[in-house]
Amino acid sequence: MMKSFIEVDPKSHFPIQNLPYGVFRPLMMGGPRIGVAIGDYVLDLSVLDAEGYFDGTDVDGKGVFEQASLNEFMALGTKTWRDVRSRIQQLLHEDESILRDNYALRDIALIPQKNVKMLLPAQIGDYTDFYASKEHATNVGIMFRGKENALMPNWTHLPVGYHGRASSVVLSGTDVRRPQGQTKPANSNAPLFGPSCQLDLELEVGWFIGPGNERGKSIALENAEEQIFGLVLVNDWSARDIQSWEYQPLGPFLAKSFATSISPWVVPLEALEPFRIAGPDQEPEPLPYLRTNKPSSFDIHLEVNLQGEGMKNSKTISTSNFRYLYWSMAQQIAHHTVGGCNLRPGDLLASGTISGPEKEMRGSLLELTWRGTEPIEIENGEQRVWLEDGDQLTITGWCQGEGYRIGFGEVTGRVLPALKQSYTLSHI
Amino acid sequence: MMKSFIEVDPKSHFPIQNLPYGVFRPLMMGGPRIGVAIGDYVLDLSVLDAEGYFDGTDVDGKGVFEQASLNEFMALGTKTWRDVRSRIQQLLHEDESILRDNYALRDIALIPQKNVKMLLPAQIGDYTDFYASKEHATNVGIMFRGKENALMPNWTHLPVGYHGRASSVVLSGTDVRRPQGQTKPANSNAPLFGPSCQLDLELEVGWFIGPGNERGKSIALENAEEQIFGLVLVNDWSARDIQSWEYQPLGPFLAKSFATSISPWVVPLEALEPFRIAGPDQEPEPLPYLRTNKPSSFDIHLEVNLQGEGMKNSKTISTSNFRYLYWSMAQQIAHHTVGGCNLRPGDLLASGTISGPEKEMRGSLLELTWRGTEPIEIENGEQRVWLEDGDQLTITGWCQGEGYRIGFGEVTGRVLPALKQSYTLSHI
Repeated sequence: MMKSFIEVDPKSHFPIQNLPYGVFRPLMMGGPRIGVAIGDYVLDLSVLDAEGYFDGTDVDGKGVFEQASLNEFMALGTKTWRDVRSRIQQLLHEDESILRDNYALRDIALIPQKNVKMLLPAQIGDYTDFYASKEHATNVGIMFRGKENALMPNWTHLPVGYHGRASSVVLSGTDVRRPQGQTKPANSNAPLFGPSCQLDLELEVGWFIGPGNERGKSIALENAEEQIFGLVLVNDWSARDIQSWEYQPLGPFLAKSFATSISPWVVPLEALEPFRIAGPDQEPEPLPYLRTNKPSSFDIHLEVNLQGEGMKNSKTISTSNFRYLYWSMAQQIAHHTVGGCNLRPGDLLASGTISGPEKEMRGSLLELTWRGTEPIEIENGEQRVWLEDGDQLTITGWCQGEGYRIGFGEVTGRVLPALKQSYTLSHI
Repeated sequence: MMKSFIEVDPKSHFPIQNLPYGVFRPLMMGGPRIGVAIGDYVLDLSVLDAEGYFDGTDVDGKGVFEQASLNEFMALGTKTWRDVRSRIQQLLHEDESILRDNYALRDIALIPQKNVKMLLPAQIGDYTDFYASKEHATNVGIMFRGKENALMPNWTHLPVGYHGRASSVVLSGTDVRRPQGQTKPANSNAPLFGPSCQLDLELEVGWFIGPGNERGKSIALENAEEQIFGLVLVNDWSARDIQSWEYQPLGPFLAKSFATSISPWVVPLEALEPFRIAGPDQEPEPLPYLRTNKPSSFDIHLEVNLQGEGMKNSKTISTSNFRYLYWSMAQQIAHHTVGGCNLRPGDLLASGTISGPEKEMRGSLLELTWRGTEPIEIENGEQRVWLEDGDQLTITGWCQGEGYRIGFGEVTGRVLPALKQSYTLSHI
C-alpha cells in the first residue's frame, strides 16, 4: 500500500491515496491559496509551484495555486489534474527524499490544518441540484401525493433537477439562520408569516465541473466524467413548510435559498476509482443519450450526525451510501447539457438527497420522521421531528479501503434562531 | 423640456432624459468599458472619469467605468448613481459648454453606436425569474390544468419565482440554437428524444440588483427600490414540449436554460420616475411584508416583433405593457430576500412573461396561439404556431413622454436549426 513520509492514521480521511484540494488562508499571515490535505497537514501548492515542482505540467507559470478559488485549475482539465496529482503523490511518497528530507521546504509547505482557515473552494457560477435518489423521490412522493402518484411519470426517464441558488452556498462551519417566510398550515384559511417550523437537512453529495461546454453544444455521456473535477459533501438545508406552500408550479425557491453548506475539501474523482461500482439497475432502459454499460457509481459511506445544544455527544441519525443513487453523475451531466445549456468551471452540481432502501438510510428528517409523524430518539428521551435552534448538524463520508480511507472530511453547521422582525406579529 | 447639444430624434430611445448604461468595446481599438447611450452615440464614461469629470462623486479614483461589467458601479448604491447621472446630464445639456465646445474631448468621448460592439452589461451571479403577470399565469394555468385550477392557491399571496440559469444569459443579437431534449407527446407511451417542436419566446422585463443584502438579512419593501440599478428587456426563450414533460415537481430546467436574451442598455430606475403609476389592485391584500400604498409600477409600452426568414418586414405579434404586472419589482425583491437569501450586485431578476388583459397583449406564442390551436397570421398567409428555424424575434419597449421617449432599445435573436446528433435517430 502506498504510504507517505507523513504519518497518517488509518482512520484519517486524508491519506496519500486521497489528496483532496481546498482553498485556505494561513492563520498567521498570507492570502488565500490552494493546498491538498495530507493527514493533519495542508500541503501548500503555491509554495511547491513557486519552487518549480510543477515544471513541465500545464499549471507551470500560470499561478493557478496562488488563487482564492480552484476555478482556474478546474478549467485545465483531466490531463493536467492527473499530472499534478501524480507529482504531488510522488513528492509525498515515503521513499522520495526531495520534500521528506528538505526541512526548510517542509517548514513552509506543510502547515498543520489547525493553523489554517478553509475558504469556499470555488467561485460557483451556477449551482444545480438534482433529485436522483429513487428512494428519496418515492418517499417524498408518497407523503405529498400518495402512494399511487409517488414517482412522477418523468422520473425514471430523466434525472430531474432544478437550478439552485449560488449566492447562498456557504462553507462548512457557517451558522445557518432559521428562515422566515410564508407558510399555510392545513388548518388555516390564509397563509401566515413567521419563522419556519419545519427546518430540515438534506444529505447530498456534490461535484465541481471542470472545463465545461460551449453554449449550444452538449457533453456526451462517455465524456461526462472528464468534467468532474472532484466531489464534496452537501447539506441542502430546507424549510419544508415554506416549500410545500411555494413550490407549485415552478419548484423550490425560498425554501432552499437561505443556505446550502458544502465541505471544504474537494476529493478528486481519480481518488475514488478503487471504489467504482455499478449503480442500481435502470428500468425502463434510459434513452440512448443516457445509456451506458460502464459502472458509474461509487461506494461512499455517508453519515448524518446531530448534536442538540444540551447534548454531550452527537447522535448518528442516518447512514446512507452514494451507491444508492439511481442516476449517475455522468448521466446528470449529459442530461444537463443535452439541450445546449453551458456548464462553466466551478459550477456545482449536487445529487439531491441520498436515501437508501432501509429506514435508517433516509437522508432527511422529512423522511426519517415521516413528515413529522414519527419522531426520532436522539438522547435520554430527547426527540426530534424537525431541527431545533442550536442543533449542530454534521455530515461525513468516506470510502473504506484496505487499511486506509478516502474521506470527505465533514460539512457542519449550527441552526441559529430566526431574526425577530417587526411585522411578524402584526398581521396574524 | 431638457435637451442635449447632441441632436436626438423625438422617436429615439436615448434622449438626455434616459441615459442608460452599457458595456461596450470600440470596434477600432481598446478594451471593454462603460458608457451611456445618447441619441446615436455612446458617451464613454471611462474617458470622462480619466479627465476628472466625476471628481467629488464616489466613483472618483475607483476605475469603475474601465471595467468589462457594471458590477462595481452597481455595488455603489443609489446616491452614487444619482450623483453620476446628474453629472452626465449636466455635461450633455445644450446650455453647458464644457463638453459641447471641447471638440478634442468630444472626439474621444462620443463614439457613434455603429462603431462599438455592445457586451453583456453585468457578470450575473444569479438569475431569478418570476411569474408575476396574473394574465399570463391564468392563461397558462387554464391550458395546463383547466379553468378551475388555473391559478395555484399561492399565486395571489406571493410572487412565485424560481432560480434561472445564469450561464446561458446572452446579449441581444446572439443566435439561439433550437434545443434538443426529451419530450412526451400525448400519443406516445414513452418519451422521445429530438429537437424541440414547440420553441417559444417570453416577453419579459428584467432588472439588475445594486448593493444587495447580507445572507440571513432581508430587504424591507420600503427599501427595495433602492436595490434596482436599472431595467432591461428580456426574452426568456422556452421549449414548451420539453417543459411540460420535465417540470414536475421541481420546475422548468432544460426548457429554459439553453438561452435567455437581454438588451444591452440598462435603463436607470430614475429615468422611469415620470412614468410611475399604480399597478393592478391586489386582492386579497398581501401579507404586511408585501404591503405598500406607494405606486410601484411603470407605464412601459412593450412590443414583440417576428420576422421569418423569407419575410421583408417584421410583424408585431404582441403589444403589452409593464403596468399589467400584478406583483411589483419591489414586492419581488422583498419576497426574494425575506427568508435571508442574499442578492449580490449584478444579480438579474426578471418579471416572467408580461401578458395583458386583451388577446393581442399575450406575451408568448403559447398564449397567442392557445397552445398551438389558434395559429397567428404573420404575412401573406404565412402563419406561426411556434417559432421556426430562421425566425428573428425582437422585443422592444419605451415610455412615451411629451416629445421624447425613454426607450429600452431592443433584444433580438435568431433561431438556428438544432444540431444533428448521432443518437437522434437510433432509438425512436
